[in-house]
Amino acid sequence: MSNAFDAIDVIRAKRDGVPLSAGQIRWVVDAYTRGVVPDEQMSALLMAIFFRGMSGDELAAWTQAMIDSGERKDLSSLGRPTADKHSTGGVGDKITLPLAPLVAACGVAVPQLSGRGLGHTGGTLDKLEAVPGWRADVHEEAYLRQLREVGAVICAAGNDLAPADKLLYALRDVTGTVESIPLIASSIMSKKIAEGADALVLDVKTGSGAFMKSAEDARTLARTMVGLGEAAGVRTVALVTAMDRPLGRAAGNAVEVAESVEVLAGGGPADVVELTLALAREMLAGAGRDDVDPADALADGRAMDVWRAMIAAQGGDPDAPLPSPAETHVVTAPATGTLTRLDAFSLGVAAWRLGAGRARKEDPVSAAAGVVWRAGVGEQVTAGQPLLELQTDDAARIPRALEALEGAVGVDTGEQPLPLILDRITA
Amino acid sequence: MSNAFDAIDVIRAKRDGVPLSAGQIRWVVDAYTRGVVPDEQMSALLMAIFFRGMSGDELAAWTQAMIDSGERKDLSSLGRPTADKHSTGGVGDKITLPLAPLVAACGVAVPQLSGRGLGHTGGTLDKLEAVPGWRADVHEEAYLRQLREVGAVICAAGNDLAPADKLLYALRDVTGTVESIPLIASSIMSKKIAEGADALVLDVKTGSGAFMKSAEDARTLARTMVGLGEAAGVRTVALVTAMDRPLGRAAGNAVEVAESVEVLAGGGPADVVELTLALAREMLAGAGRDDVDPADALADGRAMDVWRAMIAAQGGDPDAPLPSPAETHVVTAPATGTLTRLDAFSLGVAAWRLGAGRARKEDPVSAAAGVVWRAGVGEQVTAGQPLLELQTDDAARIPRALEALEGAVGVDTGEQPLPLILDRITA
Repeated sequence: MSNAFDAIDVIRAKRDGVPLSAGQIRWVVDAYTRGVVPDEQMSALLMAIFFRGMSGDELAAWTQAMIDSGERKDLSSLGRPTADKHSTGGVGDKITLPLAPLVAACGVAVPQLSGRGLGHTGGTLDKLEAVPGWRADVHEEAYLRQLREVGAVICAAGNDLAPADKLLYALRDVTGTVESIPLIASSIMSKKIAEGADALVLDVKTGSGAFMKSAEDARTLARTMVGLGEAAGVRTVALVTAMDRPLGRAAGNAVEVAESVEVLAGGGPADVVELTLALAREMLAGAGRDDVDPADALADGRAMDVWRAMIAAQGGDPDAPLPSPAETHVVTAPATGTLTRLDAFSLGVAAWRLGAGRARKEDPVSAAAGVVWRAGVGEQVTAGQPLLELQTDDAARIPRALEALEGAVGVDTGEQPLPLILDRITA
Repeated sequence: MSNAFDAIDVIRAKRDGVPLSAGQIRWVVDAYTRGVVPDEQMSALLMAIFFRGMSGDELAAWTQAMIDSGERKDLSSLGRPTADKHSTGGVGDKITLPLAPLVAACGVAVPQLSGRGLGHTGGTLDKLEAVPGWRADVHEEAYLRQLREVGAVICAAGNDLAPADKLLYALRDVTGTVESIPLIASSIMSKKIAEGADALVLDVKTGSGAFMKSAEDARTLARTMVGLGEAAGVRTVALVTAMDRPLGRAAGNAVEVAESVEVLAGGGPADVVELTLALAREMLAGAGRDDVDPADALADGRAMDVWRAMIAAQGGDPDAPLPSPAETHVVTAPATGTLTRLDAFSLGVAAWRLGAGRARKEDPVSAAAGVVWRAGVGEQVTAGQPLLELQTDDAARIPRALEALEGAVGVDTGEQPLPLILDRITA
């Protein structure tokens, strides 16, 4: 690419609200990825974007430049429609685990390149690694073979998937430029578009445990991402969903795998089942298979069959017992009445402090750590009944987890929890 | 200093409009100067400051932190009042050259630590280096001796003068964060306060050739700097002056020295004389010597005597012929009438392209290059008379200088030039 642009001109234009051309954006993202534009110039540009935002054209060019820093995969050789899901992250959000095999069981292949958790939200790969033997790394050839033979793969993204995003994300993380809707949208969508699926469903969470605290911000992010996906030829729909309370009855790693297996066996918490089916229907519709009802594949065991094959294909033993915690601690209900508050962020931080999450990328996580709750919002509880069970490998972690839970539980507080699915956003 | 603060927290607070504490500011400036906070974090903070500005308290703390990165000089051993001047930079602005010896001749010592030019505005040191033998570098001991014996010194600032500013300025230069009034004000004032003079006069220029294009921005910058100077115990006054047209009749290096010597000899262009006297009166008043009329010291040759001694003390020969250009090119007046437009920026760029200025810090400048004009705004010109003389060592430079001058000259256009001195700003 030519050296026709100057980083200072690009920064000053964005700073002063002058629209950037597609050429300027292509150049600056490429030059940054190649190390020609240094970190200090990119961080100034990112902060200017934080304040000025990006127009639709700018954002489309920025996202395309990030995709072009690597390779957009071509899955047409599968001879089968493909669909994927992305969640912006929440507490107890294990939906990918039952969802991927369920959609695959309905005839649509699911190529899910996933990540690890950081902070109070868990990561799909961390959860699956609680399954003895299961490996997150799958080579290109094995990936395509598994998609063809099993229909679903959940694995770590390779370095060729939007490498610009990897660099930009690390820079944003240390320069206070994470919280920008266009930068968040382009980061997510560059990877998801590069993944090569025909259809994409976005689960944009809102509430205390979500990245987007307000429903309005969540809707804006959803609309922005749907626009980017459609512009890149990916049929994209977003659901805006509740993360004021955690999903299901467990947050952690092994505990979430166990809950996912319950759902695949036809049981499991109602909210996890409802959201899994809603997302599955969107993925199937996006992939042109709205003639199929995923509830059938859940009821007749086909989804469970795909789960077992998917786990086994990556070295996991679907029948092996999951790791269990060395220490547990029970928190009882503070009063009798309706549980109206079970704060997602507090429970997420508690699970993290118990060992389920990490503070830095290089930290290990504990497979057995987490929190299990015996009632969900809207249910009746009795004073003194066991409400939360804290699970950890290390009892010394319990006091700080309990601190995180102060004020997290409310009985009869009159608070109105969010509906599970707030909104459906399409192009 | 402790590691009690985190750069990301400081960036996010400023980004979100939360006031920074003095402790946060001291820490971040110090940690950046020591290399603990990296460039990419500081540039994000600078861009956030560009958008959010700084409160009076924040700015005072930021400026003090920059001063404290080096040493604030103590000139009390001189046993004589001291005063200095700073100009925000303009075209043909050689005022420091006659002003420093003039004020010294009136009994107030002038300790001027100066800089080099970059872009279309010249640098005082570059101009003085046109004098054969003159050296910009003066050691600490010689500096104090010269102040005591001659009364005036104009020399390069050492590395101990607000070193944080040197680092920050270099970073701002490449990250599009130069044009921020609080950052400009703290950069100038940290160095000027650290210099140790009792009184300071600021010449804040406005118009096409100035950094501040609008008079309102110039007034804001002037008020901000006066506040910082007074808060640090330096009696500070600012004049807001015209830079829609260049000062005097010459822009370059040797040509501006020659013009300064004319002023010191009792002649010279009226605007240069007027501004030199106005600034001298402010410096004398600030240093407690408003009983002295600098016009006398100009008329009776005392200022010229100090000039000669000041040049000689730094190795210069005040009687040596100045470098003269190898090539000249004359531009004639386009019409007969009143010269109403002589654009400062255009003339500055022309002088720069002829070799008088530099594009990068490490570039050399030509002593002989520059532009001389035969009439100033408000004067009568006759079509075809020589109006501008371009001077250069290299004839190949002339075409691009002529390009810069397109549209720079207007005769009878009805434009109203700014008054020379627009405003006087005090605490």
